Amino acid sequence: MNKLAVIALGGNALQRDNQRGTIEEQEKNTFRTLENLVFLLKDGYDLVITHGNGPQVGDLLQRNDAGEQVYGIPQMPLDICVAGTQGEIGYMIERILRNALTKHGINKNVVSLISQVVVDRKGKSFRELVKRVGRTYSEDVARKLEKEKKWVFKEEIKSGGGFRRVVPSPQPIDILNSRIIKDLVSAGNIVLAAGGGGIPVYIDAKGNYRPVEAVIDKDMASALLAVTIQADEFYILTDVPYVYLNYKKPDQQIAEFISRDEALRYLKMGMFSEGSMAPKMKAAIYFVEHGGSSSVITEATKLENKKYGSRITMDKKR
Amino acid sequence: MNKLAVIALGGNALQRDNQRGTIEEQEKNTFRTLENLVFLLKDGYDLVITHGNGPQVGDLLQRNDAGEQVYGIPQMPLDICVAGTQGEIGYMIERILRNALTKHGINKNVVSLISQVVVDRKGKSFRELVKRVGRTYSEDVARKLEKEKKWVFKEEIKSGGGFRRVVPSPQPIDILNSRIIKDLVSAGNIVLAAGGGGIPVYIDAKGNYRPVEAVIDKDMASALLAVTIQADEFYILTDVPYVYLNYKKPDQQIAEFISRDEALRYLKMGMFSEGSMAPKMKAAIYFVEHGGSSSVITEATKLENKKYGSRITMDKKR
Repeated sequence: MNKLAVIALGGNALQRDNQRGTIEEQEKNTFRTLENLVFLLKDGYDLVITHGNGPQVGDLLQRNDAGEQVYGIPQMPLDICVAGTQGEIGYMIERILRNALTKHGINKNVVSLISQVVVDRKGKSFRELVKRVGRTYSEDVARKLEKEKKWVFKEEIKSGGGFRRVVPSPQPIDILNSRIIKDLVSAGNIVLAAGGGGIPVYIDAKGNYRPVEAVIDKDMASALLAVTIQADEFYILTDVPYVYLNYKKPDQQIAEFISRDEALRYLKMGMFSEGSMAPKMKAAIYFVEHGGSSSVITEATKLENKKYGSRITMDKKR
Repeated sequence: MNKLAVIALGGNALQRDNQRGTIEEQEKNTFRTLENLVFLLKDGYDLVITHGNGPQVGDLLQRNDAGEQVYGIPQMPLDICVAGTQGEIGYMIERILRNALTKHGINKNVVSLISQVVVDRKGKSFRELVKRVGRTYSEDVARKLEKEKKWVFKEEIKSGGGFRRVVPSPQPIDILNSRIIKDLVSAGNIVLAAGGGGIPVYIDAKGNYRPVEAVIDKDMASALLAVTIQADEFYILTDVPYVYLNYKKPDQQIAEFISRDEALRYLKMGMFSEGSMAPKMKAAIYFVEHGGSSSVITEATKLENKKYGSRITMDKKR
């Protein structure tokens, strides 16, 4: 039987921060990233792919803002915007992955789901407004939007000032249609799901699914999906080949094999930056703590040579 | 064994032309429309749902235009915009349908696919620029955009003047993942697919899937899907309870039962308006000509009482 891997693609594996984000750039980046998955497929892995949406949902929120300014078109809430990016990005990945498979002579079908993810509305994570979304506003405009749209703003201290909208990044607790994802991948399809961390919803007292204005961490949603469908391995593909200790300091060091206990200790020491490696490491730990055999953090381009990448396991393995 | 029906929801079953298109309005419209599907479910039908995206993709194109004007964010091509509306609308339908099922005590799962549809790039339909998309521009701006973006414009003769972009509405020839759609609905799920007529792609000489700047007629894509998955019945839900002969004329008449030959004759006579009932009738005919037992054109609210609606069959049946 094939091994099952969940692959979480970073939003910037598709749209780079130093590019304008034209469709030509995005398609080229996507093809280059996806071609590397061929190495896993040739090794006999079944794949479920998730993806981030940071740059894309940022653009969409700005388009919503501009559409209201220029044409008076009502802005859509955040859940609808995340859903929109699932459509855009899921389609682009599915189409381009089909072409990458054709190029490499691999006969696999690809299918993409629109994915809702249930979040814990009662937990602490729901009350913490940790995620900045959309553009930066002046204080005057931010105060006006607070009243009009009930958005909450925080001042940007570090990056040039101004005010940005903040929303929670609640804990994901259930991936809708995970049974179908498992069945589709077991039947030989490559499945795309939980894009952008999934569209956040909660279940109210009457059992109804309600929308939430929040952003789910895509690595944590991907880890939950990997656990739920009992994946063997969990890959977080980002823009560095390894996890580093003392990153960008004189004593920077590659961490190639990391046990769960070491990872927890490093996290506690503040070894990993909060907006970047820390959530990836937490997701990697979550997976191995819930039955997964190993989590890998690396660059897509390093999948060819399996000695690359940092591997997190319960007990350190070489 | 359950009967299988494909239900094509009009884009304005969700977002009405006489409303601003706020999310509250869209959610209310969607719930009201979807509640009517309960009657079919209680009659033992398995359902595949498709939807239009006219008002939503119109808004998205304007947001793209405004985002470029105000923030310099590159506009996305039409295939990406259609994909975005599949995400937005598919999510909204799936979430609200789950709630409508809960309200009516129906235990069915719902799953939504991001759907590409292969179009005939060599056919006549690909060269005819029949579909107006996006906002109306002045002649100066239209000429500038023609150069910058290689868009083609036509002057609006009837509706107040100005220039609008025109794209083809090519014939759909293959619904990607139709086998999976069939399997999922056979397993008891309600499946959403081919939203907005599907994301238009073609297959090039090397076997690669390439994007197309076009809009596929959602009723024709739905009819093709219904034929491909061997549905028994095909419902086109719109804003009139019946097909009318001599619509809005003194001798207007309900056409309750229509044979394929009668339908073809009416079409030839120009009985149905090109932007509205004519494409629905063509899709209805396509379905019964390719093995479907009957096509129904009606309002969602008329599903409760099965005597409502116009029924198109190969041989007229009462």
